[in-house]
Amino acid sequence: METQVTHPSDDDFDLSGDTLHEECGVFGILGHTDASTLTALGLHALQHRGQEAAGIVSFDGRQFYQEKHMGLVGDHYTDPAVLAKLPGTIAIGHTRYSTTGEVALRNVQPLFAELEDGGIAIAHNGNFTNGLTLRRQIIATGAICQSTSDTEVVLHLIARSRHSSTSDRFIDALRQMEGGYAMLAMTRTKLIAARDPVGIRPLVMGELDGKPIFCSETCALDIIGAKYVRDVENGEVIICEIQPDGSISIDARKPARKVPERPCLFEYVYFARPDSMVAGRSVYKARKNAGINLAKEAPVEADVVVPVPDGGTPAAIGFAQQSGIPFELGIIRNHYVGRTFIEPTQQIRAFGVRLKHSANRAEIAGKRVVLIDDSIVRGTTSLKIVQMIRDAGATEVHIRVASPMIFHSDYYGIDTPDPDKLLANQYADIEAMCRFIGADSLQFLSIDGLYEAVGGKKRDPKAPQFTDHYFTGDYPTQLTDLNGRTMNDPKQISMLREAG
Amino acid sequence: METQVTHPSDDDFDLSGDTLHEECGVFGILGHTDASTLTALGLHALQHRGQEAAGIVSFDGRQFYQEKHMGLVGDHYTDPAVLAKLPGTIAIGHTRYSTTGEVALRNVQPLFAELEDGGIAIAHNGNFTNGLTLRRQIIATGAICQSTSDTEVVLHLIARSRHSSTSDRFIDALRQMEGGYAMLAMTRTKLIAARDPVGIRPLVMGELDGKPIFCSETCALDIIGAKYVRDVENGEVIICEIQPDGSISIDARKPARKVPERPCLFEYVYFARPDSMVAGRSVYKARKNAGINLAKEAPVEADVVVPVPDGGTPAAIGFAQQSGIPFELGIIRNHYVGRTFIEPTQQIRAFGVRLKHSANRAEIAGKRVVLIDDSIVRGTTSLKIVQMIRDAGATEVHIRVASPMIFHSDYYGIDTPDPDKLLANQYADIEAMCRFIGADSLQFLSIDGLYEAVGGKKRDPKAPQFTDHYFTGDYPTQLTDLNGRTMNDPKQISMLREAG
Amino acid sequence: METQVTHPSDDDFDLSGDTLHEECGVFGILGHTDASTLTALGLHALQHRGQEAAGIVSFDGRQFYQEKHMGLVGDHYTDPAVLAKLPGTIAIGHTRYSTTGEVALRNVQPLFAELEDGGIAIAHNGNFTNGLTLRRQIIATGAICQSTSDTEVVLHLIARSRHSSTSDRFIDALRQMEGGYAMLAMTRTKLIAARDPVGIRPLVMGELDGKPIFCSETCALDIIGAKYVRDVENGEVIICEIQPDGSISIDARKPARKVPERPCLFEYVYFARPDSMVAGRSVYKARKNAGINLAKEAPVEADVVVPVPDGGTPAAIGFAQQSGIPFELGIIRNHYVGRTFIEPTQQIRAFGVRLKHSANRAEIAGKRVVLIDDSIVRGTTSLKIVQMIRDAGATEVHIRVASPMIFHSDYYGIDTPDPDKLLANQYADIEAMCRFIGADSLQFLSIDGLYEAVGGKKRDPKAPQFTDHYFTGDYPTQLTDLNGRTMNDPKQISMLREAG
Amino acid sequence: METQVTHPSDDDFDLSGDTLHEECGVFGILGHTDASTLTALGLHALQHRGQEAAGIVSFDGRQFYQEKHMGLVGDHYTDPAVLAKLPGTIAIGHTRYSTTGEVALRNVQPLFAELEDGGIAIAHNGNFTNGLTLRRQIIATGAICQSTSDTEVVLHLIARSRHSSTSDRFIDALRQMEGGYAMLAMTRTKLIAARDPVGIRPLVMGELDGKPIFCSETCALDIIGAKYVRDVENGEVIICEIQPDGSISIDARKPARKVPERPCLFEYVYFARPDSMVAGRSVYKARKNAGINLAKEAPVEADVVVPVPDGGTPAAIGFAQQSGIPFELGIIRNHYVGRTFIEPTQQIRAFGVRLKHSANRAEIAGKRVVLIDDSIVRGTTSLKIVQMIRDAGATEVHIRVASPMIFHSDYYGIDTPDPDKLLANQYADIEAMCRFIGADSLQFLSIDGLYEAVGGKKRDPKAPQFTDHYFTGDYPTQLTDLNGRTMNDPKQISMLREAG
Repeated sequence: METQVTHPSDDDFDLSGDTLHEECGVFGILGHTDASTLTALGLHALQHRGQEAAGIVSFDGRQFYQEKHMGLVGDHYTDPAVLAKLPGTIAIGHTRYSTTGEVALRNVQPLFAELEDGGIAIAHNGNFTNGLTLRRQIIATGAICQSTSDTEVVLHLIARSRHSSTSDRFIDALRQMEGGYAMLAMTRTKLIAARDPVGIRPLVMGELDGKPIFCSETCALDIIGAKYVRDVENGEVIICEIQPDGSISIDARKPARKVPERPCLFEYVYFARPDSMVAGRSVYKARKNAGINLAKEAPVEADVVVPVPDGGTPAAIGFAQQSGIPFELGIIRNHYVGRTFIEPTQQIRAFGVRLKHSANRAEIAGKRVVLIDDSIVRGTTSLKIVQMIRDAGATEVHIRVASPMIFHSDYYGIDTPDPDKLLANQYADIEAMCRFIGADSLQFLSIDGLYEAVGGKKRDPKAPQFTDHYFTGDYPTQLTDLNGRTMNDPKQISMLREAG
Repeated sequence: METQVTHPSDDDFDLSGDTLHEECGVFGILGHTDASTLTALGLHALQHRGQEAAGIVSFDGRQFYQEKHMGLVGDHYTDPAVLAKLPGTIAIGHTRYSTTGEVALRNVQPLFAELEDGGIAIAHNGNFTNGLTLRRQIIATGAICQSTSDTEVVLHLIARSRHSSTSDRFIDALRQMEGGYAMLAMTRTKLIAARDPVGIRPLVMGELDGKPIFCSETCALDIIGAKYVRDVENGEVIICEIQPDGSISIDARKPARKVPERPCLFEYVYFARPDSMVAGRSVYKARKNAGINLAKEAPVEADVVVPVPDGGTPAAIGFAQQSGIPFELGIIRNHYVGRTFIEPTQQIRAFGVRLKHSANRAEIAGKRVVLIDDSIVRGTTSLKIVQMIRDAGATEVHIRVASPMIFHSDYYGIDTPDPDKLLANQYADIEAMCRFIGADSLQFLSIDGLYEAVGGKKRDPKAPQFTDHYFTGDYPTQLTDLNGRTMNDPKQISMLREAG
Repeated sequence: METQVTHPSDDDFDLSGDTLHEECGVFGILGHTDASTLTALGLHALQHRGQEAAGIVSFDGRQFYQEKHMGLVGDHYTDPAVLAKLPGTIAIGHTRYSTTGEVALRNVQPLFAELEDGGIAIAHNGNFTNGLTLRRQIIATGAICQSTSDTEVVLHLIARSRHSSTSDRFIDALRQMEGGYAMLAMTRTKLIAARDPVGIRPLVMGELDGKPIFCSETCALDIIGAKYVRDVENGEVIICEIQPDGSISIDARKPARKVPERPCLFEYVYFARPDSMVAGRSVYKARKNAGINLAKEAPVEADVVVPVPDGGTPAAIGFAQQSGIPFELGIIRNHYVGRTFIEPTQQIRAFGVRLKHSANRAEIAGKRVVLIDDSIVRGTTSLKIVQMIRDAGATEVHIRVASPMIFHSDYYGIDTPDPDKLLANQYADIEAMCRFIGADSLQFLSIDGLYEAVGGKKRDPKAPQFTDHYFTGDYPTQLTDLNGRTMNDPKQISMLREAG
Repeated sequence: METQVTHPSDDDFDLSGDTLHEECGVFGILGHTDASTLTALGLHALQHRGQEAAGIVSFDGRQFYQEKHMGLVGDHYTDPAVLAKLPGTIAIGHTRYSTTGEVALRNVQPLFAELEDGGIAIAHNGNFTNGLTLRRQIIATGAICQSTSDTEVVLHLIARSRHSSTSDRFIDALRQMEGGYAMLAMTRTKLIAARDPVGIRPLVMGELDGKPIFCSETCALDIIGAKYVRDVENGEVIICEIQPDGSISIDARKPARKVPERPCLFEYVYFARPDSMVAGRSVYKARKNAGINLAKEAPVEADVVVPVPDGGTPAAIGFAQQSGIPFELGIIRNHYVGRTFIEPTQQIRAFGVRLKHSANRAEIAGKRVVLIDDSIVRGTTSLKIVQMIRDAGATEVHIRVASPMIFHSDYYGIDTPDPDKLLANQYADIEAMCRFIGADSLQFLSIDGLYEAVGGKKRDPKAPQFTDHYFTGDYPTQLTDLNGRTMNDPKQISMLREAG
């Protein structure tokens, strides 16, 4: 029975897998006659960044239009009738992870506000490390908050700014925010993009038919055949505006004090789509390189290299090429799981079935298997996969993880479990972890191995090239809410609970 | 073709009938263990005041809970699972007319705001005549409006008040509002009721098991077996609060300067339920008296008195008793129309069918019929009913209307058509109206006849006892928005249009 | 505790009232370009005969089309998109009481079958007294039954008939059926109407633009402005067929051996709409006459005559006119109850609220009230209404019922409770019933009083003019299933249970 | 414009890809307390065989229970409330491709019929080549067909059989059927499995906790941890029955005359899940072998081997291992497309976007690419993928297809396009096909290459080991309906069209 204690039963059936989650993808376009359709397509390409809800706001020269729906982009925004309700040549959209229930639509972005001189809609990916502190301040001075979203705080700061132009108000608001964010704003004539001073969250600029586009990843440009122009730089605000003559002006500013860029490593490890370029680097190549470095750092004698699909596949290809061990699809992913098997019955749990993955017995039985995964968070899924591979007849099961051990929480838009739930914090050393998971051996890629895979160089301890606090504890910004303990102040918790 | 102009074809198929609509009913209770269930029942009894959406907010000592649903009260709030999401001993609810679409839920009341020292929810019936003016002012000073509801303006004024107690903040906000309203507010310990200085909209106080209740009409007390205590007076604010010892304090204030009460006549003519007492007077008796006075003022030789159901029935009973002409159900109402036949096909229009009413041919054929209606707004329904009665074989059709001609718009919560769509404004005299409607004769009750029916006395021109501007043009309050032309200022119209 | 036995608590909260229910209304039209729209309108007018589901089948010269939906006619068939799916010039429709759940759609009529020489759809109102016996026989010879509807048995008999023409097959099938029915059938060229040999269930023939129509009641003709032609006679089959030249032939046959017609009295007492003519008699007049006769048979000293709405209103008008006691709306019906308050919470029950009716206190308090109801089945609603009237301050409450006491079950399409649940079977005499109900006096109309009210003559005991077994036990047909105890044979109960 | 003619624009946006579709997966279990839950899990594992609807029937000793739902298994059958409606220890389930609309539920299997001695439910994968001929015969003798499913014909044949036991009736019905099928039937005590005489469609037998299971593929055994026992043989009927003592008897019969087994090759090429064993052979290995043979038969000089996901991946791995060219994920599949993007707007089509696939530019640009696909049907998707790869910067694009050219229709449950829409029939030779697709070279695997990959031996022209008519025109059974032209007889087409 002791094993039951060490194998946390409540979390045992995590169907979405033992992975981290990010909260958003954003897309915006200015001056294009198919603005909302292109935005829907862009959001569809960014669906992996958030599957729970999606919203689009458009403006047609007279009015703003808004559609928000729970569910996948393709569930709603492929309906011509829905797109017809979003006329105009300016649009921004947002796809988000992790809200539940109909009423929570009020938290779905973009958020809109009517300012004295017209409306503004904003959408962002990321998180503010001083959001609750600011929220407390503005409520104390008479503001009414309708959502529990940090993004609403930005709207209030814009509304309260003493500047006259919307751009200046927006920049004024951003100056007060700390954290990691990629943010889009639209007004009746402008599309504005901003990235946090450190450049944690990604944001790229593209162009279609001469019209500017901003989106979280390049894959959203590819889906509509748009051209990649450049990444929005860290701390940069780019203001695009339709001029009276129909031309579009582009004004790039750097209101934040200049610090070196530190893109989030987890975009390369797990979040970004493999066909995207993040900060000019191929995500697929970064993952494959991680697999190559892993084969160098932690070689193993085995008969077959098996990726844990789908995240582990590029690294497994690299590992196989480097090691010379054949690459085979030893685990088959069931594509129909989606988010639907959300409430397994007790019987289903009891049978211990694998709804998401199954062993390809013919390639496993009687073999020494090396499993390649992109990352391990709590280890609960790894545990089950090892057991499944053993059940299929593997003689040895070795795990190689294409990123370092995770020790610390994120506060920049990645949904991390409590630190004490992380595998790396639960066991004294890697041998104990390996025993928990039940593998014959377990190795993680080193932080330098990952830096080299992604950026070509080892980590510079004095000026790390990437955001990597989940591995290292080195946070790239202040953590005002956390340190001010605002998060634990009960008066700041929303007092209204809406049923789902 | 001229007849087509005078018989407005677009409005020809008004299935909800040619009537006015009011926007709301409110109910609130403090300190009762079944607070939300009682509120649901009260709203059900007030369903005639608004059928489009209903909302309830409750508080259980720790948190506020909110449910909002489009549709009838009985469609949602009879489900134990829904009521279970509204725990606690304080609740207020609201039922409303005339919003469409899912997203418009954001306009459904009660509205909630988190203030610095806790949450507040408010619900009201009525309309502010300076709502847009105030809205403009608060947006200019940095507020963000999330709904297009005037009620939200009240929340902002409360949030911005410099007073410290919620009650004082609420009264501070009301001081700035003009118009007609019956308003409920709830905080973590208080239930507050307020009625506008003139007392246009109704609001009564009741009691169940020693706990205070406020609601729009007495029928909402009857449904739960609660006792009627008194009407909330014009200009009065009553603050009920749960004390630390569990007792409830009641504090009645009159912050508005004292003016005579002028209840809205249309509550007696059409809106209120016949079994309700409004300002201490039986609505049924007022309507029956109106029929009696109508028989005296405008007698007619006929074989049968037929009510236009259901509004005309009490007046028809009075008319029949006074005139000695037999009362018969010459028109049968189809109870299943509801709000469902909302998009009639062209064929249905072409057939000119009556989905809501049908003639009881056996009581009509070969007879001189006097139809009794409660009121005539545009006359388009009257036109069709007269035709239906003639088609059923009536030899003569006379119309007697138990209220005066309507000439003016309302700005206190009654949804009136454009003045130039009103029958009384479209024709030079009553003979022309009668020709339009196709009746053999047409007579309206005089304003004095209505005053006597409701209040026992003729109208005092110097100090009218009732609000009666739709008949007389005598508005009981300032019309700030209208006079300041705020309503036509495009910048003040909400710029966000949400699809339904 | 004994009172709990006599006041059955489980049935205590019968929101649909203590009334009987019939199962269907039918409508069909041949040769009209708006066939399905007219059918939808006709069904809407027949909505009072069944509110749970509605179906329409049409044929456009090439194919049959079918729509079936749970809910009211107006919930679905007013949508132009739905009607567009029902093209063609022939259509029949059906509205039905009492099925629940989505899957039960398979029981919703019309039912369709493909025969060797083309399709046939049938719809009927009524019930077969030998349906289960026949069902057993056809299953024993290899038929497959897909529904639990008796109507399907008719389809099987048609399919198995050795006759070649569809009409002859249809008549062949009917010859084997016993019971009460009004049935419509449609093929690719024909619309066929049939009424049971005794003429229990009503069916009328009408005409619009020269095209034949059949429907349950004349109110379905009135809604579309169609002309009433005549009633389909008992035992008659009328076959209308589109000829090659576009004309329509009408062939009326009497395959059943001729017996005198005995229409169901309950159509007059409760089911039919008051504006309908049934067997040439005004339903409204029959009810009013019943009230007049009731005032003669069972006079009472009182201050006010109050109908139990809506069924009791015509009788109350008659009672008031005969007795000279004023008629007043002492009970107000809440029009918004509909079928929505279906799962009252325990709290709602506990409060004993009246969601459907409320007392008009101003007309009740201090008065001697005589309540007029159309019928009493179990008495549970009467009990609550008397209590409500007393709570509103009545000094005396007398009940007068405009039909005789009910002792027996129906087997012809009326859903009756178990005989031992009927009030008349639960108490030894009328005084005991009156005590149960809590009234000061209780009287029922005599069977002769009802016969005179409806047909002008007393009951002829040797050859009763109407079907009246629920009052008298005199069943107009054989009861084969009942006597053969087929109904209790477990093998004949459908073995498939579909969840709702 | 000529290219538009050759690039059929209507089919241009085939989001489900240019693939064939099979109609069903089946699963059944006898005697297990979790029968319906295990069936739901098994159907989930078989989801790839049909995504449009799923149904389950269970029996609990007293009654049959049935649930049918449009959509994925996981959309409905993971809800404990749904499974609770399926009690009992016997259950069969079915998942199906290609029905639309709610009412089409009547076509969703299992189908149920009440026979004289109890109920029977059947579910099958496959198609009868004499289904319409039989349908015509039974309708001519008085049967009523409620669905348009061939499966219903089997029910009728069972109901009409003169045999007394259900097993004998079932076998009697099967004797009359021609075609390819894997069929399950359940009665109150039995679970029966049958496979067509040639063994076209797959069906395996498994065991869990000593209870027999039948299902389409072994992956449905793996998901619940059940043991694979053996394949049901061609022409075999296996009758499992719960005995009075609770034990289960198993009776295997061979009523069909013995012919050699010929499993369908397309199960290996495309349909079956790669982790399944079909007729004892690993599907994954068969596909990988096909890729190896393809590399031998049709080598090409290239820089990178890219699978067309997901079908082409195993063959691409084999091709890469055999050729020594690196395997890379050059095309990324968007997992969120699902079946939701079903109605693309004109704009989306105009942009020519790829919602399902995107090029991994970093692995493609500047390279000679060899694309590996499992099969080509019409070529329309291949065309677009080649263009996408060229747009991503490939210098050469070669296509290698791991199966032969398709020339003929299937009549055994695979949904094939009109033969004249097949790529192989539209062009004179492979060079013309290659030009149409726009590739630099195009090669298909030979029929012998495929036979060797799957079965280890070349095709035996006198007694082919597999069903392969789509490649060769050699149909393994009679085609009665086709040759009797029944399919084109308009009277046999269902005359009832139900709107979706």
